[in-house]
Amino acid sequence: MSSPIDSTPDEDRSACGASHALDRALALQPLAGQPDGYMGHTSIDYWNMVGPFGGVTAAVALQAVLVHPQLLGGPVTLTVNYVAALAQGAFRIQARPVRTNRSTQHWTIEVTQTDAAGTAAVVLTGTAMTALRRDAWSDDEQRMPEVPAAAQLEPVRSAARALFRHYDLRVVEGHVPQRWEDQLSPSRSRLWVRDEPPRPLDFPALAAMSDIFFPRIWLRRARQTPVGTVSMTVYFHADAARLARAGTDHVLAQASGQGYFKGFHDQSAQLWSSQGELLATSHQVVYYKD
Amino acid sequence: MSSPIDSTPDEDRSACGASHALDRALALQPLAGQPDGYMGHTSIDYWNMVGPFGGVTAAVALQAVLVHPQLLGGPVTLTVNYVAALAQGAFRIQARPVRTNRSTQHWTIEVTQTDAAGTAAVVLTGTAMTALRRDAWSDDEQRMPEVPAAAQLEPVRSAARALFRHYDLRVVEGHVPQRWEDQLSPSRSRLWVRDEPPRPLDFPALAAMSDIFFPRIWLRRARQTPVGTVSMTVYFHADAARLARAGTDHVLAQASGQGYFKGFHDQSAQLWSSQGELLATSHQVVYYKD
Repeated sequence: MSSPIDSTPDEDRSACGASHALDRALALQPLAGQPDGYMGHTSIDYWNMVGPFGGVTAAVALQAVLVHPQLLGGPVTLTVNYVAALAQGAFRIQARPVRTNRSTQHWTIEVTQTDAAGTAAVVLTGTAMTALRRDAWSDDEQRMPEVPAAAQLEPVRSAARALFRHYDLRVVEGHVPQRWEDQLSPSRSRLWVRDEPPRPLDFPALAAMSDIFFPRIWLRRARQTPVGTVSMTVYFHADAARLARAGTDHVLAQASGQGYFKGFHDQSAQLWSSQGELLATSHQVVYYKD
Repeated sequence: MSSPIDSTPDEDRSACGASHALDRALALQPLAGQPDGYMGHTSIDYWNMVGPFGGVTAAVALQAVLVHPQLLGGPVTLTVNYVAALAQGAFRIQARPVRTNRSTQHWTIEVTQTDAAGTAAVVLTGTAMTALRRDAWSDDEQRMPEVPAAAQLEPVRSAARALFRHYDLRVVEGHVPQRWEDQLSPSRSRLWVRDEPPRPLDFPALAAMSDIFFPRIWLRRARQTPVGTVSMTVYFHADAARLARAGTDHVLAQASGQGYFKGFHDQSAQLWSSQGELLATSHQVVYYKD
């Protein structure tokens, strides 16, 4: 682990009554003369093993859409591709409304970073669709499973990664294997998650939580191998009212792998509010080495 | 139905021993002086209710990546966003290799059409990731369900849409409701599908088959409402050898809805070869009206 993980500037700032770590990670500065462009900065608060937590990177990509002055409606889909590892520091993000229909709007997203030699390189690509929701018939076909309440479970304690200080995680089933014994098991995990300290749920927070799971292949194989998410899609099944009902409570997050093939596996996930309302479904592809 | 559906130029051409309808739909002409650009033409062979079948549009988007001279490896992910309805006629497609890493390559895709007034508009956006597969540990955690063989089931006969002439579909369970009785049912469908006439399975064909299902909301509600796919993601769990084993046999395709919320619902799908090997997992979001 590199030194940024051991420093605690976020806690210093929290102590001063400043904003939530997630809000600081989501802070974007408009670029003068570039209507679709913003500057951001990677967050050491959510540092993961070798780079910023991909969930928060996805949240930032969505945030660039949500703060755009031409935004129509709220998010329905978000796809982000982790093209290259983000270096600690500044990045430039462009969210461009490619087409605005009567009730839907399509976006392309691109994040670039400039290296010491001044060369800009793409580190993330993405697309999103936002829409004005109508009061149509609605139904959560995928029901929340019956699980113990978050309050009945112990939070996960881990000093290993900065990001664990900013999430309250309580594992219902499918925790990281206690022993790496190379035995095949079902890859399903269920866990409660909320921001730490609690923060009212919004779309960027939900996008970040969609990536909260450790890699399915670790659970499937009980073997710890090098991994990295290469692409994630989130479908939102919520509007402002549903998010408000979810509030600052834990969200139940469930994930399973379906296929593991020659270096890449998928993950299918569902997130529900503590009241059992489906908030998002998500899918990702993870690179793995043997 | 508009007149193109009633004309049968494809059959005339088939009778001459020309290429498969899917190969004609996938035909792209490089644009001189534009290394990432191609011209294509919508296929009336795969015409759906109000436009070209979205599955074939996704297949064309992937094809633009696969024919690119800088292609690295084979496809792992594909996301396409149906930004606007494609008009019958020519389109321009751009597949740009945004970043080429050692073993992975990230792509952005854009399809534009020019209207009678000469104005170009984006009709599709997308991203893809290709990779050199390595001989890593592999496993199909999502097993193919036990179902009757395709030969034991009757093919679906429908003259209603051109595309049904180009697929052999055999429904195992979850057919289009016989009666629209407004009763809530599980939305799962299982069906066998192959190109008609048979065609050796490749990645574009698999991308198209990922969109073969009628909308989950019709089955869930037993109520036929206006719908349209707005975004689809396909994760490929196959290489050339696995596709070759699938051959020209039927593919088992399974789909379920998870959430239906205020005008948009999702669909989660899996596709297996007749030998039970997982070929692709897919997800999409569908717009619906009450």
